[in-house]
Amino acid sequence: MPVPRIGILTISDRAFAGAYEDRSGPAIRQTLEDFLATPWEARGLLVPDEREPIEGALRALCDEEGCCLVLTTGGTGPAPRDVTPEATAAVCDRILDGFGEQMRAASLRFVPTAILSRQVAGTRGSSLIINLPGNPKSIRECLEAVFPAVPYCLDLLGGPRLETREEVIHSFRPPP
Amino acid sequence: MPVPRIGILTISDRAFAGAYEDRSGPAIRQTLEDFLATPWEARGLLVPDEREPIEGALRALCDEEGCCLVLTTGGTGPAPRDVTPEATAAVCDRILDGFGEQMRAASLRFVPTAILSRQVAGTRGSSLIINLPGNPKSIRECLEAVFPAVPYCLDLLGGPRLETREEVIHSFRPPP
Amino acid sequence: MPVPRIGILTISDRAFAGAYEDRSGPAIRQTLEDFLATPWEARGLLVPDEREPIEGALRALCDEEGCCLVLTTGGTGPAPRDVTPEATAAVCDRILDGFGEQMRAASLRFVPTAILSRQVAGTRGSSLIINLPGNPKSIRECLEAVFPAVPYCLDLLGGPRLETREEVIHSFRPPP
Repeated sequence: MPVPRIGILTISDRAFAGAYEDRSGPAIRQTLEDFLATPWEARGLLVPDEREPIEGALRALCDEEGCCLVLTTGGTGPAPRDVTPEATAAVCDRILDGFGEQMRAASLRFVPTAILSRQVAGTRGSSLIINLPGNPKSIRECLEAVFPAVPYCLDLLGGPRLETREEVIHSFRPPP
Repeated sequence: MPVPRIGILTISDRAFAGAYEDRSGPAIRQTLEDFLATPWEARGLLVPDEREPIEGALRALCDEEGCCLVLTTGGTGPAPRDVTPEATAAVCDRILDGFGEQMRAASLRFVPTAILSRQVAGTRGSSLIINLPGNPKSIRECLEAVFPAVPYCLDLLGGPRLETREEVIHSFRPPP
Repeated sequence: MPVPRIGILTISDRAFAGAYEDRSGPAIRQTLEDFLATPWEARGLLVPDEREPIEGALRALCDEEGCCLVLTTGGTGPAPRDVTPEATAAVCDRILDGFGEQMRAASLRFVPTAILSRQVAGTRGSSLIINLPGNPKSIRECLEAVFPAVPYCLDLLGGPRLETREEVIHSFRPPP
């Protein structure tokens, strides 16, 4: 069995231009290292807040790199440059509304501006794509809210079997 | 006044093929018998997980059988064969996002994988269509979460007046 | 700096026909007077439950009157004449799902029929449009639920800086 690959896509004009260091991609990677018991490989990319590069990166991570899971960070707010949800929807076969609802509900416990987030999740073939916020602290809060359902979702999509460290995050598979 | 009709549509490749017995359709019927004080008639259909038969069955139940309410079970997950939400959206005039949100929130109290459900509800003319999960136990949980709003919704759509058994489920109509 | 303008659009066949007095528009205005510390000007319009007049009014309030915020009341239910969400979506560049989710969740604390509301919010250029319910009492409940995020949303859209009366409603801006 090949080692499962997980794509981490940082979407940020300023990080892309080198104006500051990407701290969001590493925050996703660190959270996944904490969560996952199954060995996995990261595939990281960094693009500006523009639909074409975002869609191209998502397609490359899913179709060429074979990532079973792709996590994006950045570009989900209401500002004119925020186009991550549109780019994600454009490359997905189907949208899973429950992820966005649950991530907003989780973030709402910390900040009322969580309702401004347009985060979506969806499937592209057998890959699951989830938009996470740009803020490193919010990334972990959102992943804690939805990751319990991720391994079973990948099962249903025909992807690799992921096991979590149960003492860190409890993933759930319904009895067959 | 004719007796109100309620359509119950089971969507399942395996039940359709006779590989196992449909337990979800009967679970819906039993729950409605518990909930409704008004006499009603069931119209049941069973189709495989394919858009054309699902859409045909929904149109037949609404337009030919005159069902004021159609409840589906099955086909709402993220797996490739799950197409019930797409078929439902295709035959509906408008989607009522609050139903899906509320059913996912209700199921989340029991299983974190509730966020994987793509359940929708919508109207087709004067009929209300609601997607329920495939699992018989989850069916009742979801109906308990949304049924309090169903009688008033049918009022607004010009449908028949349904009364619930108030000791089982409290339906609500705002004062005029 | 010009005084920020806020549009208040009442959508009601009966109020438009003069069959009864519009109490919803004034309820929005009163709530905003309670909430806002920043001076502001109201621009009010009244239209029937029809897409063309609603869309025309929304465009006029955003594009000609320069309203940074437009609040609508009425026409968000499942009844055949309710077309406010469709009209709003048609004039918006992007939809902010979190507003509808949060307003339904807030109203659900009072009435189970809150799930029937199809309220949406979205942006048109640098304007934010939010659908509120028709019922004057529910208007304040919904505004209390989402207004804490409105000033920061307008910041992100490049609009005027609004300050709220913190003793009445706590608006939130994340630290830069």
